[in-house]
Amino acid sequence: MAGHTPADGAFYAVIPAGGSGTRLWPLSRSGNPKFLHALTGTSDSLLQATAARLLPLCPPERMYVVTGTAHAAAVARQLPELPDANVLVEPSPRDSCAAIGLAAAMIARSDPEAIMGSFAADHLVRDREAFVRTISAAIEGARDGWLMTVGITPTRPDTGYGYLQCSQVATATKMEPVKVVEFKEKPTAEVAEAYLASGKYLWNAGMFVWRVQAFLEELRRQQPALYDGVTAIAAAYGEPGYDDLLAEVWPTLTKISVDHAVMEGAADAGKVATIPGDFGWADIGDFDTLGEILLTPEGQATGNVVVAEPKEAPVVLMDTKRTTVVAHSGRLVSALGVHDLIVVDTPDALLICARGRAQEIKSVVDRIKSLGEDRYL
Amino acid sequence: MAGHTPADGAFYAVIPAGGSGTRLWPLSRSGNPKFLHALTGTSDSLLQATAARLLPLCPPERMYVVTGTAHAAAVARQLPELPDANVLVEPSPRDSCAAIGLAAAMIARSDPEAIMGSFAADHLVRDREAFVRTISAAIEGARDGWLMTVGITPTRPDTGYGYLQCSQVATATKMEPVKVVEFKEKPTAEVAEAYLASGKYLWNAGMFVWRVQAFLEELRRQQPALYDGVTAIAAAYGEPGYDDLLAEVWPTLTKISVDHAVMEGAADAGKVATIPGDFGWADIGDFDTLGEILLTPEGQATGNVVVAEPKEAPVVLMDTKRTTVVAHSGRLVSALGVHDLIVVDTPDALLICARGRAQEIKSVVDRIKSLGEDRYL
Repeated sequence: MAGHTPADGAFYAVIPAGGSGTRLWPLSRSGNPKFLHALTGTSDSLLQATAARLLPLCPPERMYVVTGTAHAAAVARQLPELPDANVLVEPSPRDSCAAIGLAAAMIARSDPEAIMGSFAADHLVRDREAFVRTISAAIEGARDGWLMTVGITPTRPDTGYGYLQCSQVATATKMEPVKVVEFKEKPTAEVAEAYLASGKYLWNAGMFVWRVQAFLEELRRQQPALYDGVTAIAAAYGEPGYDDLLAEVWPTLTKISVDHAVMEGAADAGKVATIPGDFGWADIGDFDTLGEILLTPEGQATGNVVVAEPKEAPVVLMDTKRTTVVAHSGRLVSALGVHDLIVVDTPDALLICARGRAQEIKSVVDRIKSLGEDRYL
Repeated sequence: MAGHTPADGAFYAVIPAGGSGTRLWPLSRSGNPKFLHALTGTSDSLLQATAARLLPLCPPERMYVVTGTAHAAAVARQLPELPDANVLVEPSPRDSCAAIGLAAAMIARSDPEAIMGSFAADHLVRDREAFVRTISAAIEGARDGWLMTVGITPTRPDTGYGYLQCSQVATATKMEPVKVVEFKEKPTAEVAEAYLASGKYLWNAGMFVWRVQAFLEELRRQQPALYDGVTAIAAAYGEPGYDDLLAEVWPTLTKISVDHAVMEGAADAGKVATIPGDFGWADIGDFDTLGEILLTPEGQATGNVVVAEPKEAPVVLMDTKRTTVVAHSGRLVSALGVHDLIVVDTPDALLICARGRAQEIKSVVDRIKSLGEDRYL
């Protein structure tokens, strides 16, 4: 980026921080979602880690978080370096296209030449330098007019992620844009094996980089009502009547993900490219993944992972294997002779789940809701 | 008993309430042992239930509890109808022979003709009327001079109980004393099968009924030092210098169970008989047994047992089988897709144990002790 002048477009980072992370219940709650937690053995929350890894690419003044009303205060306090106006608060959840579209329209209003990147608040990145190299390459691709996405070189035939089908074999060595032919939904195990073998498929990390104008044009083409809504809101920002307009328009916006709303159609139109990345990325979507991601070399013998907060909370595992313990209540947690479990201990709720059933934790949340015990959600 | 005059010997009940129930950790603690807990789905603690089922046989004035210093206050409060002097407090744990021997000597001092029964504080009895019939028959046997024990008609080849070998096939239908040939330790599965098939073996329920004089004579014959100690203490009770004598003598008493110290030798001498009983008895020695005992007919489909305190504590079990949950923290406990587990949730400690490993919970307690975390024990 050093070689570019402001006329080339400065880089802005947008962090959509929504969603309550039902599959991480009871750690993640509607009032205390996963991105506010330090899940990965560091003292930073996932949100703070996301902001920190973007700092080499843009200063806090060009960093935005889009979040819900319930989490605005926590976001503002976790990221004190962000200007107040950069914490964009959605009146209600309208999925990622509305959130990202609003940020794009806001940024475009003050800087029409801006390059914007969107980065989920709850992902894990191990290698920050490789991340910066990859995003820098994506920024170059965006300057060239592509709607860029970041693809992750798959290390296993994962069935929990969506995939990007590339026009050619894609590896992370060259850092050059590769055209994306199609966005693929989460595959079956068999299909995932074929994807891995072909070398042409990357994990869709849900990170996007584009000129705000290029994105807004595609949004106007594919989702004109959404485009009209977010640009009207952005135009009114700071004006009298803004609150009323927001309250009136926001609830009418289509609830749709940016992948479905814009990126898939843009790929069909030949406008999407990717930088294949390799920076130790993971989407901590459930506790099973958490157990895989946090397994240390020393932990290989047992397969056990312990995430304790406070760190000194006593955890005693005897003859226990492949078990992930999230000890967040400060109580003593002990296990004897068990295996392949997820144990999540919080001050007011305990969950014990079979390792292979982590994706179904939502059903427990639904059951608790049906019992009228919403205070635990 | 109605037909007997006081000269025939009144019946006294003694409840040794010692031991911390390590195999029921973390529910049972050194400061809060299992006999003080309501474990069986009733509001009564095990101790209170023990006293209540003895009331048809003797009034509170003839009921004694022998307990440790740490539990004296709790025992006194749980059994407010007992006279103060009937809560006998051991200065330190010296196993059951010292506890029962002291009670016998105390009772004999004031009523040499007394019949005394000893009943553990932590057993479960489902059929109280059958219990009373059985003990009444044992009292008759004691009047005839036998050292009586109560044998339970076995319903399965249990390897967790000791057995009484009888001189003949013993059933609970006749309520007449059957001579006990030998006390048998916990058998192997194969031996237990043979015991069950023979019809001559009963579970040793650890309940004894005898004339105090007959017991004390056997104690003098087999354990003269113990006999001298407990009679000296009983003789000094209420006198100046009692406390000093107790402090001096008690720690010198042999630590031995009454089975080993007296009953086995008495059986060799042909002095022991049993009433075969059938009153829904169980020794809640571990959580696995608790899960078996408390399994209701409605629970048969899943095999799950929930013991919640308070009763309204929410427990959500989804696709969960053969799992026992003790929810004593008031928190929500949830499980998904697990089986054959024991989950014990208390305000400061959580245990998750494989169902078949319940007997080994002591090893967890040992580990916690070795970590210096005694506050959890």
